[in-house]
Amino acid sequence: MSTAAALAAFDRMWADLDPVGRVGSGGYRRFAWTREDATLREWFAGEAAARGLDVVEDRVGNQWAWWWDGPGSVDDAVRAGHTGLVIGSHLDSVPDGGAFDGPLGVVSSFAALDLLRAGGVAPSRPVAVANFVDEEGARFGIACAGSRVLTGALPADRARALTDGDGVTYAEALAAAGRDPEALGRDEETLARVGAFVELHVEQGRALVDLDAPVAVASDIWPHGRWRFDFPGEANHAGTTRLEDRRDAMLGYADLVLAARAGATDRGCVATVGKVAVTPGGVNAIPSHVTGWLDARGPEEAQVEALVADLEGRAGQHGAEVVRESWTPTTRFDAALADRLRAVLGSSDELSVPVLGTGAGHDAGILAGAGIPTAMLFVRNPTGVSHSPAEHAETPDCHAGVEALAACVADLAAGQP
Amino acid sequence: MSTAAALAAFDRMWADLDPVGRVGSGGYRRFAWTREDATLREWFAGEAAARGLDVVEDRVGNQWAWWWDGPGSVDDAVRAGHTGLVIGSHLDSVPDGGAFDGPLGVVSSFAALDLLRAGGVAPSRPVAVANFVDEEGARFGIACAGSRVLTGALPADRARALTDGDGVTYAEALAAAGRDPEALGRDEETLARVGAFVELHVEQGRALVDLDAPVAVASDIWPHGRWRFDFPGEANHAGTTRLEDRRDAMLGYADLVLAARAGATDRGCVATVGKVAVTPGGVNAIPSHVTGWLDARGPEEAQVEALVADLEGRAGQHGAEVVRESWTPTTRFDAALADRLRAVLGSSDELSVPVLGTGAGHDAGILAGAGIPTAMLFVRNPTGVSHSPAEHAETPDCHAGVEALAACVADLAAGQP
Repeated sequence: MSTAAALAAFDRMWADLDPVGRVGSGGYRRFAWTREDATLREWFAGEAAARGLDVVEDRVGNQWAWWWDGPGSVDDAVRAGHTGLVIGSHLDSVPDGGAFDGPLGVVSSFAALDLLRAGGVAPSRPVAVANFVDEEGARFGIACAGSRVLTGALPADRARALTDGDGVTYAEALAAAGRDPEALGRDEETLARVGAFVELHVEQGRALVDLDAPVAVASDIWPHGRWRFDFPGEANHAGTTRLEDRRDAMLGYADLVLAARAGATDRGCVATVGKVAVTPGGVNAIPSHVTGWLDARGPEEAQVEALVADLEGRAGQHGAEVVRESWTPTTRFDAALADRLRAVLGSSDELSVPVLGTGAGHDAGILAGAGIPTAMLFVRNPTGVSHSPAEHAETPDCHAGVEALAACVADLAAGQP
Repeated sequence: MSTAAALAAFDRMWADLDPVGRVGSGGYRRFAWTREDATLREWFAGEAAARGLDVVEDRVGNQWAWWWDGPGSVDDAVRAGHTGLVIGSHLDSVPDGGAFDGPLGVVSSFAALDLLRAGGVAPSRPVAVANFVDEEGARFGIACAGSRVLTGALPADRARALTDGDGVTYAEALAAAGRDPEALGRDEETLARVGAFVELHVEQGRALVDLDAPVAVASDIWPHGRWRFDFPGEANHAGTTRLEDRRDAMLGYADLVLAARAGATDRGCVATVGKVAVTPGGVNAIPSHVTGWLDARGPEEAQVEALVADLEGRAGQHGAEVVRESWTPTTRFDAALADRLRAVLGSSDELSVPVLGTGAGHDAGILAGAGIPTAMLFVRNPTGVSHSPAEHAETPDCHAGVEALAACVADLAAGQP
């Protein structure tokens, strides 16, 4: 296989994934443990098998496709000190999300292996392509659920009890997909294999356009979290109940939405209320309960925490209860690993490989938080739009990403990091 | 059958309906042309058959159970000038609605017939119990859809094109329920039979507690309508998109909610935003589209219209498009009929039968708007709560309602009104 053939394989894989879970908006609905997810998992296993990779599913359902032609098994190599180098990302999406967030990293990883093999590289340590399950948390509300359970950041009991919008629990969804919910939990055996993780991802923002660079290396992930605000009310008839007799749960919710934007502006953060659930939800019934989900992030932990504290106090005046569903402090990627990748990629021109922070959470952040040396590569996004059907990266930039990832693997798997 | 037996029949019918469409909240989800609706329609036909009534379904799907023991058919009697006296209400509910709104009128009507027969009354004109389909509009968004199509107030083409939350059209729902969508339309044959309509309904508000009366007669229905506000935005990542780069559709929606309450307070109206739909609806995605539904009513048409005009202007600043989904001007019930019913019910003590206006729409209002002499009876609601699982009426008051309705029928069907 030539370099051209490896990049053609990228294009072919990209085209194969294009229709899976695509909806009328032109975006995708690829949610964990659904039929679409099963199709994507079969696709992953098929690409791995076509390359002679050994597909293993961990206790959580994350998929790992191992390449190891050395003596003994992958675990033999790990026991001998040759821990695995993992690349990959995820295949699920937010509701009506774009094609690139997640799949770009997985497809680029398979293509990078093709490129390495085309160049005759025989790695000195096991290399794997990973597909982390349920990164977006679109169905059960917890982002990076697959890597969080893997590392123990999300306890198995809590994961099993998560429910989707139809009241289906995570445990029930696993069982329906033929998995054993009791198997969930921190997976020591899998973690022992992972010596380092490099996740390639489409840029979410448009810094690289101005910097005129196709690929960047990540520095850190902003602190970020999700909070659920439950506003109480009393259901009653919209036509016959006097305003002074009402307890309308929608009013506190609307106040939260506007206060979140104002507070985020004041504190240099970003805040979003993108999901709401109303009970009973009839046009002519006063809402008895409104749940709103706040997503808040920013470059400084203290400012994000202060913003949320302000909002909790304000919502409390409307009787709201607030639950922190997730919180991830600032995640700093492995500085030595990032420097090494920049050296590999930048060669003579250091400016050609920028270093970017990001407001988006990633499985790479969860693994970094668990002590695994972790790095990320970002591929230029011409509009900066993400989590939308308009999310995009140009094909030449995607190919540059594949070549950069292959160069990183060649360097990191040539000897022990 | 004795009076006690007729009231026992009320209790038995009430108990039979209790479980149908009941959900975890303790409220009901009985939406038009669903399985629950089919069960309720079968129940209606069964009660009618048990009484030897002749059940006819009109072009829209409203059910009419006719009692006519006189010479010839119902239509013969109508042609001879003996137009029908119709009592009844509806069996569907708002989401998580109460047990009384609608079913109290239907069950009381059957029990009132039992009571009349127990007293040996043989009516001089045909009498029918009606079950109007889709009064609440919970599924397709238009309240009183059954009576609106029957009278031509809602054109058949528009009705067929209505969609529910799953994108199912009214026409498709009819076809799935075994009905012919092409049959929809103003039904002259049915309307010709209806000489007068009396709808008994649970009070929605708590005026009768203070007035110490179990039953009231209605004067009018406030002008009321529904408006759909569509706010545009741009989907993007909640973590990586700068506040100044966002077009977040939720902000305009939140402003609408708060402005509607403030404006309604200023203008002596009531306004409610009880239903919202968000696209894409992910916690970490900026909303690209938010639709909110406004319900506005008040004692004065001009004030309601001015309130909505204010809100349209304000939402327009957020780029919103506003569609009026329904509008019903002030409906005045037939004054002579109301006086006659009060005379029948109040006998010596005129204060014992109060006259109340209401902010709630009813099929009776649609029929009144179509020129049919129409009246309503309200049965005391001890808390005033409606459209909620807490909606209630005490059994002795329900029995008083049955006796009042029977007295009205006895009077109106003793001779021509």
